[in-house]
Amino acid sequence: MAIVRENGPITGEKIAELLNFTRATLRPDLTVLTLSGILDARPRVGYFYVGNQTASVFGELLRKSLVRDYKSVPIVVHEQTTAYDATVTMFLEDVGTLFVVRDGGILCGVLSRKDLLKLAIGQTTLKEVPISIAMTRMPNIYTVKPETSIYDAGKLLIHAQIDSLPVVIPSEVASGQWEVVGRVTKTTITRLFVELGESKQV
Amino acid sequence: MAIVRENGPITGEKIAELLNFTRATLRPDLTVLTLSGILDARPRVGYFYVGNQTASVFGELLRKSLVRDYKSVPIVVHEQTTAYDATVTMFLEDVGTLFVVRDGGILCGVLSRKDLLKLAIGQTTLKEVPISIAMTRMPNIYTVKPETSIYDAGKLLIHAQIDSLPVVIPSEVASGQWEVVGRVTKTTITRLFVELGESKQV
Repeated sequence: MAIVRENGPITGEKIAELLNFTRATLRPDLTVLTLSGILDARPRVGYFYVGNQTASVFGELLRKSLVRDYKSVPIVVHEQTTAYDATVTMFLEDVGTLFVVRDGGILCGVLSRKDLLKLAIGQTTLKEVPISIAMTRMPNIYTVKPETSIYDAGKLLIHAQIDSLPVVIPSEVASGQWEVVGRVTKTTITRLFVELGESKQV
Repeated sequence: MAIVRENGPITGEKIAELLNFTRATLRPDLTVLTLSGILDARPRVGYFYVGNQTASVFGELLRKSLVRDYKSVPIVVHEQTTAYDATVTMFLEDVGTLFVVRDGGILCGVLSRKDLLKLAIGQTTLKEVPISIAMTRMPNIYTVKPETSIYDAGKLLIHAQIDSLPVVIPSEVASGQWEVVGRVTKTTITRLFVELGESKQV
């Protein structure tokens, strides 16, 4: 990038030569930089640096967009619910992840379709076991706060390889515990992605 | 927006007055327009129109980014696989959706964790049933092509309320049929979202 900034306009061949790479090795990188608006390319002229309004402004936008404004309603079940009833709740509410709470709405676990499926292929009869044996438990749960940015929430979903994050606030009834007030999922992010992409020249 | 374009800079109160809305009703809209870079706001001056580079350039970027460049490897199973074996494959490959094929790699179904879980809470023994009784079948399957834009793929995921799309090309062995060559999921979109958001001022 620095090469283009200092030497632009410059052809792909010339950049490759300076970096001692083949043109083919370099092509994907140049494509990404061009698509994201950091470089611009003109036929027979080469690449030149255009600073990068789009990408950075977009990054800013994502860092300023807060979970508070995009979260969905959390679907919660009590920790004594059976695996069978939890599965039914998942279908009725059409969610892929349930948050498990104890009295006072305190978050104590997260239960995914994957957890239930794992139970189902074992010897277990779903009607007889409580979800507490299958769920991921506090403190091994990734959470976000209402003031977390959507960008950080997305990063956490990818990094932790999970589908859904509980949005939590400090509990008013039990100190050091968390109350669930929302959920942010890959669906939330995908929906926002599509909304942002909808904008056309106005 | 037209109001701001023609009368800007203009205060929120004034816009509300012109539209006959309360300031509170209007606030979320103004926030979105400001965050997405269509309007700009200055304290004690008001809102003014800045055209909309960011949002539209971002939209352009998403429409130019193709499934071909972001798709993952598809995980496929044969249509005679048992539900139990399909579930095991899902865990081993760590995917939420399997694509079901017949000889020649022809796409004939899509099987999600949800489909398997539905079987599991029924009377069914997963080891005894083939996935063909639980999967969604062609032609009721949403697909994308390598040249579909990531934006259109994201829109389809949201619209169809599914997690994963098979990327297909026309089969060379069976005319009118499709061969699976990739997958695009909400994870693909979330990962791209985070990558785009990473860009800082350079």
